[in-house]
Amino acid sequence: MRALVYEGPGLPVLRDKPRPEIREATDAIVRVTHTTICGTDLHILKGDVPSCKPGTTLGHEGVGVIESAGAAVRGFRPGDAVLISCITSCGRCEYCRSGMYSHCADGGWILGNKIDGTQADYVRIPHADTSLHHIPAGSGEEALVMLSDILPTGFECGVLNGKVRPGGVVCIVGAGPIGLAALMTAQFFSPAEIIMVDLDEHRLAVSREFGATHTVRAVGKAAALAVLELTGGRGVDTAIEAVGIPASFELCEDIVAPGGTIANVGVHGCKVDLHLERLWSHNITITTRLVDTVSTPQLLKAVQGRRLDPGRLISHRYTLDEIVQAYATFVNAAETQALKMIITPG
Amino acid sequence: MRALVYEGPGLPVLRDKPRPEIREATDAIVRVTHTTICGTDLHILKGDVPSCKPGTTLGHEGVGVIESAGAAVRGFRPGDAVLISCITSCGRCEYCRSGMYSHCADGGWILGNKIDGTQADYVRIPHADTSLHHIPAGSGEEALVMLSDILPTGFECGVLNGKVRPGGVVCIVGAGPIGLAALMTAQFFSPAEIIMVDLDEHRLAVSREFGATHTVRAVGKAAALAVLELTGGRGVDTAIEAVGIPASFELCEDIVAPGGTIANVGVHGCKVDLHLERLWSHNITITTRLVDTVSTPQLLKAVQGRRLDPGRLISHRYTLDEIVQAYATFVNAAETQALKMIITPG
Repeated sequence: MRALVYEGPGLPVLRDKPRPEIREATDAIVRVTHTTICGTDLHILKGDVPSCKPGTTLGHEGVGVIESAGAAVRGFRPGDAVLISCITSCGRCEYCRSGMYSHCADGGWILGNKIDGTQADYVRIPHADTSLHHIPAGSGEEALVMLSDILPTGFECGVLNGKVRPGGVVCIVGAGPIGLAALMTAQFFSPAEIIMVDLDEHRLAVSREFGATHTVRAVGKAAALAVLELTGGRGVDTAIEAVGIPASFELCEDIVAPGGTIANVGVHGCKVDLHLERLWSHNITITTRLVDTVSTPQLLKAVQGRRLDPGRLISHRYTLDEIVQAYATFVNAAETQALKMIITPG
Repeated sequence: MRALVYEGPGLPVLRDKPRPEIREATDAIVRVTHTTICGTDLHILKGDVPSCKPGTTLGHEGVGVIESAGAAVRGFRPGDAVLISCITSCGRCEYCRSGMYSHCADGGWILGNKIDGTQADYVRIPHADTSLHHIPAGSGEEALVMLSDILPTGFECGVLNGKVRPGGVVCIVGAGPIGLAALMTAQFFSPAEIIMVDLDEHRLAVSREFGATHTVRAVGKAAALAVLELTGGRGVDTAIEAVGIPASFELCEDIVAPGGTIANVGVHGCKVDLHLERLWSHNITITTRLVDTVSTPQLLKAVQGRRLDPGRLISHRYTLDEIVQAYATFVNAAETQALKMIITPG
C-alpha cells in the first residue's frame, strides 16, 4: 500500500509499505478514505518530536471504513464508516476513566508518532472500541476529518479550558486552523466579543467571515495595546494562545483581565517567561492540555444538528499520490492561503 | 495614639499620630484589640511595594471594637466586636459583585498599604458594612486575627484554587505561616496525602503536628525527586507554592501530575520560567490570586464548629509598645521559631 513516511528531518516520502495487520484482539484495520495534515506533522518533519522515529507513517487524522477487526472488538464491524480519533484510548486506565485520554497508559497521541499513522491507504487502530467513532449516515464524511483533532483541540484546550461564557470577552492569538477551530466552537457559548490577533490579513478576513467581532493585525506590545483599547483597558476574560511561541504567550499575559483565563493550545518548543511579579495578585488561571478527544461525540452531534460546519476549514484537496505537494502547500500557508487540506487516497 | 509607621526601607517606627476620624459615611473607626505582622509587611519594609508611601501606618490584620460608625453604616454599632478583613470591599462594583473583592474598584488591599493600617490603637475602615465581620460571642477573639488574612489566603489561594479533594495528593512548598494555613484548611477536604517541603526542621516538625503526612527537607531538584519518589513517580494533584521565589515555583512545575493544579500563593518579586516546552501537553492548571476574603464567613463558622483552631498559628505575643521587637523576632524566624505573633495594644 502507499504510505507517507517520515525519513528524518526534511520532506516526507511517499512509498510502498506492507498493509498493517491485526496484532492485538482489540485492534481494527481501517481503510482510509480521507485524511489531512496537521501542524504537528510539520513539527515532526523539523525533527522536534523525538518520539517519532524514522520509518513511521505520518498522520493522526482520518475517516475511513473498517476493513477488519480483532476478536475482542465489539462496537465495530467490517464495512462500518468510522472517524479516527487522534488520541488512542484504552478506556480502562485511571486517566481514561477520568476523561483524560491524552495521558492513557497504553495510548495517548501515538498515531503517526509512536506507531504508523493515517496518511496511507490503511491504518491499524489499537483499542478500536474506544478510539474510533461511528459516522452517522449523511454527516458529510469528508469534513468529519476535522473532528479527528483540530476541532476537539480548539474546543477542549481553548474554549472549554478557557471557560468561554455568555457575555464574556475572548481573544484568540493566532488565526491559523487551530485558532479558527477555537473561534468556531467558542460561539457555542455566545461570548459578547471574539477578538482575533494575527499578522496574516487573509486569515483575519476568514476570521471575520467565521464570526470574529474584531481583528487585530499586530504582534507583541502593539497587539496588547490594541486589545486593551478594544476592551476599555480591562482586558479579556479568555485569552487563547494558538501559536506556540513565547511572544504569543506573553501577549496573553498582557491582555488577560483580573479573574480571566489563559488557555494554552500552542505546541511550545521552549520555555516562556511567566510574569508572576505582576500576575501573582491578578486572580488568573493558566491551562495547558493535549486534546483528550473526550468531546468528539458532542461535536459529532453539533455537526448533525447543524451547529457546526467543519467543512469551512477545508481550503485544498489532493489525492494521496499528491500528498508531498500538499505538504508544500501547507508549509507555505502565507502564500497559498492554506487552512486544512483534504487528502483522499481514492 | 500609637501607630507603627513605615518611614521608608528599613525598620518601622512606633510614634504618635492623630486618631483617625470618619471621612465617608460608610467608614467605621475600630479600636484595635489585637493585630499581627504579615510577610507582606516585610515586603513593604524592603521597599518592594511602591504603592505604600512613607508615613503610612502598617498592618492589615486585626480584631477590635467599633468606636464610631458613619451615618451610612447599617450593620455595625459602637461597641460591636469585629474582625477586620485585610481586603476592603465596596460591595457594589463588578468585581465585588462577582466575589472578587481583591480587585474592588474602591478597595482591595489598601489597609496598611494605600491608607493607614491596623498596627495602631485605632484604624479607619472604609466600606465598613462589607469589610468587617461580627465576631460571634465566645469565639476566642485573639486567635481570630488569623482570619483577617492568613487563613483565607491559604484556603482561597491555595486550597480552593488548588482543587484539593478527597483522595488527592497535595504538596505544599513552604512551611511558613501561609503554608501552614494551607495545610490546616486543606484537611477540610480529606486529601489522601499532604507533603510539606521546607528547609527548616522546626517548621517541618510543626507541619507534622498540624497533619502533614510526609515532610521533605530539601529544595530544587532534590526536593522534586523526593516528592516524585513519595508519589510513585506520578506527581501530585495539587502543588501549592507558598514561598514566592522562582525556585519554589519551578519545583511545583516539576512535581505536578498530569491533570494537576499549581496554586500560587507566594508574593513574587520577579518573573519565573514556565516550562511550556514540557507542560503544554501536561493538562495542568496554574492559578494566581490575591485573597478575596470571600471565605471569611465560612472560616468563622468552621472555627465555631471546632473544625479549625486558628490559635495554633500563634507563636509569640507582644504589646504594641514592643512591636518593633516583634518585627525583629518575625524577621529572624529561622532562629526564633516565629510563626504568627499577636500584638495587643492593651
